[in-house]
Amino acid sequence: MTSFDQYFLMNSEEVKEYVKKKVSFMLESRHLEANEIGDGNLNYVFRVINQETGKSVIIKQAGPTARFNDDFKLSTDRIRIESKALQIEGLYTPNFVPEIYFYDDVMSCCAMEDLSDFTIMRTALIKNKTFPLFADHISTFMAESLLRSSDVVLNHKEKKFRVGEFINPELCEVSEDLVFTEPYFNSFNRNEVMEENHSFVNEHLYKNETLHFEVAKLKYLFLTKAETLLHGDLHTGSIFIKENETKIIDPEFAFYGPMGYDVGNVVANLVFAWMNGEAKDNESFKLWVEETIIRTIDLFKEKFTSIWNQSAAERFAQNQAFQQHYLSTVISESAGMAGLEMNRRIVGLAKVKDITSLEKEKRIQVERLCIVTANRFILQREQIQNGNDFVQVLKEVKETLI
Amino acid sequence: MTSFDQYFLMNSEEVKEYVKKKVSFMLESRHLEANEIGDGNLNYVFRVINQETGKSVIIKQAGPTARFNDDFKLSTDRIRIESKALQIEGLYTPNFVPEIYFYDDVMSCCAMEDLSDFTIMRTALIKNKTFPLFADHISTFMAESLLRSSDVVLNHKEKKFRVGEFINPELCEVSEDLVFTEPYFNSFNRNEVMEENHSFVNEHLYKNETLHFEVAKLKYLFLTKAETLLHGDLHTGSIFIKENETKIIDPEFAFYGPMGYDVGNVVANLVFAWMNGEAKDNESFKLWVEETIIRTIDLFKEKFTSIWNQSAAERFAQNQAFQQHYLSTVISESAGMAGLEMNRRIVGLAKVKDITSLEKEKRIQVERLCIVTANRFILQREQIQNGNDFVQVLKEVKETLI
Repeated sequence: MTSFDQYFLMNSEEVKEYVKKKVSFMLESRHLEANEIGDGNLNYVFRVINQETGKSVIIKQAGPTARFNDDFKLSTDRIRIESKALQIEGLYTPNFVPEIYFYDDVMSCCAMEDLSDFTIMRTALIKNKTFPLFADHISTFMAESLLRSSDVVLNHKEKKFRVGEFINPELCEVSEDLVFTEPYFNSFNRNEVMEENHSFVNEHLYKNETLHFEVAKLKYLFLTKAETLLHGDLHTGSIFIKENETKIIDPEFAFYGPMGYDVGNVVANLVFAWMNGEAKDNESFKLWVEETIIRTIDLFKEKFTSIWNQSAAERFAQNQAFQQHYLSTVISESAGMAGLEMNRRIVGLAKVKDITSLEKEKRIQVERLCIVTANRFILQREQIQNGNDFVQVLKEVKETLI
Repeated sequence: MTSFDQYFLMNSEEVKEYVKKKVSFMLESRHLEANEIGDGNLNYVFRVINQETGKSVIIKQAGPTARFNDDFKLSTDRIRIESKALQIEGLYTPNFVPEIYFYDDVMSCCAMEDLSDFTIMRTALIKNKTFPLFADHISTFMAESLLRSSDVVLNHKEKKFRVGEFINPELCEVSEDLVFTEPYFNSFNRNEVMEENHSFVNEHLYKNETLHFEVAKLKYLFLTKAETLLHGDLHTGSIFIKENETKIIDPEFAFYGPMGYDVGNVVANLVFAWMNGEAKDNESFKLWVEETIIRTIDLFKEKFTSIWNQSAAERFAQNQAFQQHYLSTVISESAGMAGLEMNRRIVGLAKVKDITSLEKEKRIQVERLCIVTANRFILQREQIQNGNDFVQVLKEVKETLI
């Protein structure tokens, strides 16, 4: 029998053996079925189910290279980061992350709760489905996870150890390149811009020195502001959802960075859903998205303030002006980061289906809307202080552009 | 013969044996003499000299507790940090740090260049000695070491590994408490304030909510802004000097923090020298200090800009507005940090001899001058943009207070 005391990439049969040996509630189970269900480019995700009891588990293993490109090497350390991040988030918000049963640093894999009965949120949003509880759930997840891992609540020494644990050079570099750099220069051949939008992108992104100045500042926040443990990739493809439940998955990009990066990613990806509704003239869906943006930000602010008031350990946290300044900075940085996420999904390497699935004429139009909205989020971020401010920008841009 | 393959605290005899065995240019030397010359509270510093050749070496070993208090435990990791920081600084500015021959992680010690022919700068400044080359030297040291370890010049991935190597929770906590917290609250029993200045300190520091707001912001820069590898304790007691040479020593507080912390510490400690001259009515010394502050900042800005222009690897570094904004932020943060260093040396646990050695009436007066100047550095830091701005504040405060 395989001992699993040395790393190798498992196939379905080997994963079954692994589960029999290592997952307590599956020990010695017969009738296991294992299927590889991963749809990402990096990891192998096996769903293992006991046909008798119906109990199941997910085994997620990191390979030493990308799945479809052996030349693209990537440290398997990302699965350690993902597992540890989920464990820490699970301490603060157990309802909103899958349970991690264990992390195995020899096999570079983890065993986690099976969430196969959930849908990926982006997929549902593209069908213009609405989720009335989402704003409440995601604002709780963000306020709890972002504030409790920061110097506001966490012991400063403990926080420094965590900064060290979550040094994540490879995946941070992916974001630094794809989000914070390439979309602003014509010289990177990974950008992909619709023919019809070439000159628009040229004018609004490539030749925009005022914008570059602000993007540079935001990039340096990402590079240097070790504020809290971020999810690091909090778009609607990293969210499993069903009517009454929300689960945040895949924090392999986790590192200590600025809070606004996570909050801004959520807003940006809600804006993509709005754009999808806009292209389909789906007013009621758009209305739900607008309300969701407003409530996500405003509930986040409310919960953030309440956790701060109850749990802040930092001596200066009692200073009211400091608390207000801190939260105001988080929100305006969120606006800037939302703008960056929007621009990069339009012109950069990694696109989003909310936009790419649209028919061409609509897509051309909607991409321009995204870019102008994004630039206003970036340039006017200091005036963006609550949920309605985000939606107002969106509506104003729509008025002027269409 | 001792093998030195397990940690123990060495005495002079054992250090001689260690040197014979480990230091290449002393191998098998006879006629060694070893003396413990450490005057700090934490480490043991041995000077070992070969009486025949005159060659010498410093062995610095970290003990597991403070020297005079076995109950005060402290990780010996600080000597790793000190050695590595000196090695990195030595890459960029070999003339301004002692050479590290090696670091021994078993014995928690390092072997380094003997600088016994230098004087501690603070000691010389208290005698009101002047050093015409100091501004040139320290500005080179700061511009080189601060910029080249930052994301502006260093590869972003490499920088993240360094952040991890220099996680320094224990010594950062010392600064967070002594510099950024205790001086602003009457509730910490480690503060020590002259009887005659109690009500002055109460009004200007303890009861000053506007100040607390700004101090909190600066504390959060210290906690979260992982900008570059700092020396972390760059006062005039960490500088060895003689007429033509300057050597920066003792970076055991090194960590990735905001550039302004090092620059501000240098300015603050020059201000203490100025205060010493002020108390002694030594106008020519004060004039030299003023010029030195001005030249230190202005040369720093000049050299910083030149290194940036020649060596920046970051794509956005070419954006002129960003470069100016970056440097302007460094200088205003330096002003804020200078103010914090000044306040803490007046009311906090760790005092400076420049001030404590003064006769009482002068000291009372000069302490008030320090506090008012410090608060203006903190509160008006955004208006402080060049060397002369620092000196102007100092002179204006003197005019209004005396």
